[in-house]
Amino acid sequence: MNPPESPPATDAAPLDFEAVFAGLGPHVEALDACLREQVASFEPEIRAMADYCIDTSGKRIRPSLVFLSGWRDERINPDLVRVAAVIELVHLATLVHDDIMDEADLRRGRDSAARSYGPEAAVLLGDALFAHALHLAAQFPTTLVCSAVAESTRRVCAGEIIQTLRRGTTAISREDYQRVIDLKTAELFRVSCRLGSHLAGYAENFVAAAATFGRHLGIAYQIYDDLADFFGEESKIGKTLGTDLGSGKLTLPLMELAEVLPLAEQATVIGEITGKQPPQAELRLDQMRELGIFGRVEAALEKELEEAERALRPHGGQPATPRLLALTQVLRNQVARLRSG
Amino acid sequence: MNPPESPPATDAAPLDFEAVFAGLGPHVEALDACLREQVASFEPEIRAMADYCIDTSGKRIRPSLVFLSGWRDERINPDLVRVAAVIELVHLATLVHDDIMDEADLRRGRDSAARSYGPEAAVLLGDALFAHALHLAAQFPTTLVCSAVAESTRRVCAGEIIQTLRRGTTAISREDYQRVIDLKTAELFRVSCRLGSHLAGYAENFVAAAATFGRHLGIAYQIYDDLADFFGEESKIGKTLGTDLGSGKLTLPLMELAEVLPLAEQATVIGEITGKQPPQAELRLDQMRELGIFGRVEAALEKELEEAERALRPHGGQPATPRLLALTQVLRNQVARLRSG
Repeated sequence: MNPPESPPATDAAPLDFEAVFAGLGPHVEALDACLREQVASFEPEIRAMADYCIDTSGKRIRPSLVFLSGWRDERINPDLVRVAAVIELVHLATLVHDDIMDEADLRRGRDSAARSYGPEAAVLLGDALFAHALHLAAQFPTTLVCSAVAESTRRVCAGEIIQTLRRGTTAISREDYQRVIDLKTAELFRVSCRLGSHLAGYAENFVAAAATFGRHLGIAYQIYDDLADFFGEESKIGKTLGTDLGSGKLTLPLMELAEVLPLAEQATVIGEITGKQPPQAELRLDQMRELGIFGRVEAALEKELEEAERALRPHGGQPATPRLLALTQVLRNQVARLRSG
Repeated sequence: MNPPESPPATDAAPLDFEAVFAGLGPHVEALDACLREQVASFEPEIRAMADYCIDTSGKRIRPSLVFLSGWRDERINPDLVRVAAVIELVHLATLVHDDIMDEADLRRGRDSAARSYGPEAAVLLGDALFAHALHLAAQFPTTLVCSAVAESTRRVCAGEIIQTLRRGTTAISREDYQRVIDLKTAELFRVSCRLGSHLAGYAENFVAAAATFGRHLGIAYQIYDDLADFFGEESKIGKTLGTDLGSGKLTLPLMELAEVLPLAEQATVIGEITGKQPPQAELRLDQMRELGIFGRVEAALEKELEEAERALRPHGGQPATPRLLALTQVLRNQVARLRSG
């Protein structure tokens, strides 16, 4: 095992996910080259569609988790590049299918695949991306990556299905919400950290700790995303704002708001979620500001970040640890930007 | 290797796929038990949806190909059962997604999953079935099954994408048609025979021959299916009739018809395919009958069956060979039934 490195100096700590991503320069370049190479093996008709998805896919958070949890030194580990590509392809596939669900017209400032190619081709493009991810996963010497990625994907889909089935209902407890985001978002964060650390040769107890870290970071990230749906600037995050209320998705900010509103107003919010009344996103945002909802949601998010940090506490000597821990601070910074936004 | 068995007596040869399926009784029962067991591990919310798909999934042709190409004797081989379940789950996933494309209301006489649960849940259910198939594939000791199934799935999706992109156009050559059905249908037939024979321990040259057999049988089967779209009885095959013309899908019967019609009438058919004129399925069927289109399409189908049989000719001594060859006769019987239909 390599000697532990000193953690990065605090003044150089990255401020946002874009900065983390930039700090992984050569690793992310290797990932992009790998993704391009994979797409080149697609049938000509779908190559352009797949390229389009890669171009519009955003922040590469999951690949960054692979590289950071498998960090030993600056050197590029081809196994990490490949597993990062596998997980990113799965993520892209779920985005393409999500956009069909959400009828989201914009994905990072460009038209979504569903809009560019039609929902029918988008269903199949997602399938092809997912199948290719598993094909790439099968190129590892053992079935471990295939098995882990397939199981995670099934769980991601289960989370999305449960969310879809409950759309437009308000019969969702906090436990339900937690379970949905645990499946639909935290699962890929978890498996990224698990496979990254495992393929870098870390011991099983560190692999388990990294997986737990990834899971809680993922839950926190989804809570952040749900906050950003109300508090973010559309231009900043590159997708249509306030969509959750309009599409009947009951997220934590809305749950918190409904709880503190007077009963009559609660009934109206329920009407908006269930589609019986037109959504009043602006009004709900104002009420959230007035009633301190941001702080309540932020507290739930902070709890997850602390659990993530606690998992890594016994492993401070590992070179991956300070790099992973920097991510919790990055997420805190992003939340602070939303608050001041 | 087991001693070759005598081929089944001709008078006992199965007449249709249902009879083949029935002849594999205990093997198919083991498959169904395996599929049920897999679904039991799904999250409760999607278990009922997955069960529904298994119930409405039909003839189990692909699993039968696995069992027949891996035939040694009556004994049940758990590896064959598992790979049959993997391939059937992939097939079910593609059916669920196809039904979204086709807006086909009926799947084997019952509502399609897309209609029962809505297209959004159907997208995700297909994803979950596919992910579970790959998870099950990863339980083999090597990555061979995972890799083969993932690659085949990608090719199936590519075939469907190309077909979808060309819907409503008439710029399709016979080579394009052949390529689409080679990808979307023949690929899973091919991989069923390849993996069945491989997992049963057959030598590589037999595995390659079985794969070639499966591919040509699959092409022939799709041509049969396209014929049945015009000549079949809706009640017999349990799905909505004449859908290909109405949905702008240019299949071999229509290609053959357009070629022999007078130019003015050709223009009308093109208008029907491209959606500029209402489809006249009844009229086109009558013209097909008059102009001998059935015979022309049947000849193309027969060519594929002969190629399938040729691949197995050097392997007459293997116990799997007569069982596979019986399938070409089964398909001829099915075509004859359509003709007299």
